[in-house]
Amino acid sequence: MPFIQVDEHLPGIRALLAFSPATAAPMGQLTNLLLRSNEGLTMAERELIATHVSYLNNCFYCHQSHGAIAACYLNGREELVEQVKTDYANAAVSAKLKALLSIAASVQKGGKHVQQQQVDTAKAAGATDKDIHDTVLIAAAFCMFNRYVDGLAATTPEDLSTYPPRAKQVAAHGYGNHVFSEQQPV
Amino acid sequence: MPFIQVDEHLPGIRALLAFSPATAAPMGQLTNLLLRSNEGLTMAERELIATHVSYLNNCFYCHQSHGAIAACYLNGREELVEQVKTDYANAAVSAKLKALLSIAASVQKGGKHVQQQQVDTAKAAGATDKDIHDTVLIAAAFCMFNRYVDGLAATTPEDLSTYPPRAKQVAAHGYGNHVFSEQQPV
Repeated sequence: MPFIQVDEHLPGIRALLAFSPATAAPMGQLTNLLLRSNEGLTMAERELIATHVSYLNNCFYCHQSHGAIAACYLNGREELVEQVKTDYANAAVSAKLKALLSIAASVQKGGKHVQQQQVDTAKAAGATDKDIHDTVLIAAAFCMFNRYVDGLAATTPEDLSTYPPRAKQVAAHGYGNHVFSEQQPV
Repeated sequence: MPFIQVDEHLPGIRALLAFSPATAAPMGQLTNLLLRSNEGLTMAERELIATHVSYLNNCFYCHQSHGAIAACYLNGREELVEQVKTDYANAAVSAKLKALLSIAASVQKGGKHVQQQQVDTAKAAGATDKDIHDTVLIAAAFCMFNRYVDGLAATTPEDLSTYPPRAKQVAAHGYGNHVFSEQQPV
């Protein structure tokens, strides 16, 4: 049960965003900027980074919801998403994305865990400064979102069939405030 | 040295915000909403929560800069700010703020570390749902900001005399984009 009184019909972060629409607005804008862009990293790659960090933070709601969105962009390849969560080093993704996922995993532990060698490896695999910037900020932002959800004990739907329908909406329309604030079940 | 090419004249997060002005805008708005409000928690209390979390994350730039801003609001009581960083339980702050700092410290470890009993203690000391919400989101947001700064190895001024002048500007004018993006040394 959530630690504060929120709309019990809204799952996960959506109940918190409805509780505090003022802060929801810039959080939604930041999420769109970081995840709804194909400049450098693709939207699928961005969602995979968000999903892996959420998995490392043990945030069930976030890794289920962003994993489902990643699968939408990847033509339903759910098994690939699952492998990126748990064992990205052996997943069928590029060397560049593996290097960036390594950086994201270090950011999850704490900013100072990122080593120059990880950055060098990513650059050697083709990552630009913007790719590295976006990876670090996506990982850092999900250390915020994951803590927001679990730190207030937001409701987490356990029925996995509820995630894909919402994921399709986000994949089609993005993370605008209309997605964050609309009053409907998952 | 930062991992990506940024303006070397800008310290800490300011170089990163100048590198990526698009994402800087909602991050600045979120910071203003969370830290520049006296609704429920005072601006001083909000900065103390941000400072304590940044200290726990070992982010020197963030705990120095936000500690200096907190001291501005507290009529220069720097020793109080230092004690909140390292030993808030024995600091001269209210029972309510101590309870909220305890929640913030748990959020720093991870969202699932927050216990119902901590929330009950905060509520018994007078914390509202909004106070608890804001505390969790401030703590979560600084888990993002701290990782953004250190995950990209942003330049951290070691000269402590450089922090108070910038703190006075923020205390007077807030965290608007004019503060984030202006091109001047510390």
